[in-house]
Amino acid sequence: MKIGIIGLGTVGLGVLEILVNESKNLKAKGADIEIKYACDLDHDKVFPNNFDKTTLIKNYETILNDPDVDTIVELIGGDNLAKKIILEAIDKGKNVITANKALIAKHPKEIFSRAIEKDVNLFYEASVGGGIPIIAPLLENLVANNILGIRGIINGTCNYILSEMSHNDLEFDTVLNDAMEKGYAEADPSFDIEGIDAAHKICILASLAFNKTVDVKKILTNGITKIKLSDLKLAESLGYSIKLIAAASQNNNSISISVEPTLVNKKDLLSNVEGVFNAVEVEGDYVGKTLFYGRGAGKEATASAVVADIVKAALKCTYKDRHYFNIEEDAILLGENEFSGKYYVRVGKTFPELEKISYQIEQIAEEYIYFTNTIKLKELKNILGNEEYSLLRIN
Amino acid sequence: MKIGIIGLGTVGLGVLEILVNESKNLKAKGADIEIKYACDLDHDKVFPNNFDKTTLIKNYETILNDPDVDTIVELIGGDNLAKKIILEAIDKGKNVITANKALIAKHPKEIFSRAIEKDVNLFYEASVGGGIPIIAPLLENLVANNILGIRGIINGTCNYILSEMSHNDLEFDTVLNDAMEKGYAEADPSFDIEGIDAAHKICILASLAFNKTVDVKKILTNGITKIKLSDLKLAESLGYSIKLIAAASQNNNSISISVEPTLVNKKDLLSNVEGVFNAVEVEGDYVGKTLFYGRGAGKEATASAVVADIVKAALKCTYKDRHYFNIEEDAILLGENEFSGKYYVRVGKTFPELEKISYQIEQIAEEYIYFTNTIKLKELKNILGNEEYSLLRIN
Repeated sequence: MKIGIIGLGTVGLGVLEILVNESKNLKAKGADIEIKYACDLDHDKVFPNNFDKTTLIKNYETILNDPDVDTIVELIGGDNLAKKIILEAIDKGKNVITANKALIAKHPKEIFSRAIEKDVNLFYEASVGGGIPIIAPLLENLVANNILGIRGIINGTCNYILSEMSHNDLEFDTVLNDAMEKGYAEADPSFDIEGIDAAHKICILASLAFNKTVDVKKILTNGITKIKLSDLKLAESLGYSIKLIAAASQNNNSISISVEPTLVNKKDLLSNVEGVFNAVEVEGDYVGKTLFYGRGAGKEATASAVVADIVKAALKCTYKDRHYFNIEEDAILLGENEFSGKYYVRVGKTFPELEKISYQIEQIAEEYIYFTNTIKLKELKNILGNEEYSLLRIN
Repeated sequence: MKIGIIGLGTVGLGVLEILVNESKNLKAKGADIEIKYACDLDHDKVFPNNFDKTTLIKNYETILNDPDVDTIVELIGGDNLAKKIILEAIDKGKNVITANKALIAKHPKEIFSRAIEKDVNLFYEASVGGGIPIIAPLLENLVANNILGIRGIINGTCNYILSEMSHNDLEFDTVLNDAMEKGYAEADPSFDIEGIDAAHKICILASLAFNKTVDVKKILTNGITKIKLSDLKLAESLGYSIKLIAAASQNNNSISISVEPTLVNKKDLLSNVEGVFNAVEVEGDYVGKTLFYGRGAGKEATASAVVADIVKAALKCTYKDRHYFNIEEDAILLGENEFSGKYYVRVGKTFPELEKISYQIEQIAEEYIYFTNTIKLKELKNILGNEEYSLLRIN
């Protein structure tokens, strides 16, 4: 199989590294993969030894126009040029492997309908959970199950920040700045810390799990920017970790999906997922609870998932249509007004109405922390009005 | 695809249940599966509603002799009759799905060579980790990786016993008897509590991970029968759980595989795997550490994995040869004499020689507990001589 890789950033270089170094192993496993083109505007990079630099090109059109190329590997990210490239590749009958979560989360109908029409393979295992096998196990290994729910830690940057705050007694801003300096967080980290990246990922998982198309814009999305060290310490003293939890569940015909900072009981495996690691818990009606854990990002881990998809395409995988979810049926999402749960509320003044519905109240310096009984989110927000507050779900 | 199920015990009935109840769902996913025969000597069972009892037969030969049957599902267990049936089915060109770990662990050469020759699918996902997707993810999703090591809790009975001892302050015998009464442990539990079942499972995982044939008889195998409540309490006070850990790693060309009761640090995810749950950690050179967790046994969870294999065969999976490991190359296993590590030794008298190599020594009633520095297992056993002792690895 002849492939063209478009985008030689961190993950792209990782994919090159594996394909070059493991070419003999992969061939022994039945996958004879030739990198015909590696495309990037910048050729001034450290390439793996043994990488054939004559395959380097700058114009992706060359790949799209070469009928010899079976499969393109899109690793440029974003959702403009990437979408154009993917649609054009599909039109030309090429398989597409991508790690682009934003693209799949935001434009599944356009992309899937084209891929189904042209009968090509479209795989995107690396788009969720980096190196963790999650999409294929969900679709293939858990195929017997009706999925009841998914719950996970799927943004490594947030988890790293929360872990560092907790282990080193640091405030959010300090850790964020440090992470940005070290390159663990993007120069513009808002995408991660506001929960948007996690929303894209849970959007994909929920769509596959429930076989409906989820509108990513309707997902209840809260980030971790308001979390203080004192929240972590208080939570810890009560037997909880704080994690950014993405969750999706189906009840009758409506689906509730949320990304929320959450108090997770220390006995829960998710509470022990530290640093850049990710974990996804999937509950099926027959299998019960399963959990998939590993590195959610990073050069080699993500490349491991991309290469698995390339191998799958090379082995002429017959699961073609299983990686699409139903684009004919739009998921009915629970709106923010209908969400309810127990909440940890940190706020600068007392609220007699909150006192009534809280099972525990703490005071830290000038702030009050309410642990509410189950309450509708809308009702809670009504009580809090215009006051500034921080909300964490209690799991 | 027309299938014949042989063996309607717990798992067999679970498979029937899923196939009958989810037939429409599975068909929508591309797998049109017809149960042509369900074979068991005992027909006096509670079958799922809507199950067509006219498919019930007592003689498995009917299935083998019917050219209409594409795929047999062997769920009788054991390694005599099961082997005969599987070999005969393969000879007749039928796919084989099985959950039989003993059979795969003990007779891979005979079975695989026949299946390769006849070019049929042979899947056995349910043989390790019950409902947990582990074999397919290892072979398919982690295909890019050279596997460095595997470490897991893969016997639910042992883990249940250890969890119960720890949570309810009970001694081994008490919990074992209770588990036998409740049916959580077999009438003859020695297979589980002596570590033999775990040895079968790690044998399969190691063979697949390292693509060599492992002789199951050469695996260092220790059970949990000597563990006392006081061991668990002492371990807990020092920040450890005690788990029966099956582990395999490759170093140069030799492979070390062991099943040993082990002190696992509380910060390790494996230490938080409780009750009948299983978990397998796989470390790959690119992906790093991944972990797969779920129900390691039980009717519906195991059936979930069996059905996934049936669906895979129904979808005319092209991964055929990927579920075989190399039967031409025998793994060179580290013998017991070469194993080394830190050990927790409980023994009825003091040993000055042990004192010298221990970093911590405790006394409980009449017994002494040594926490040794890294030592060769052989050397340790020499020191202990004929004295009765209990050994736990320290992770």
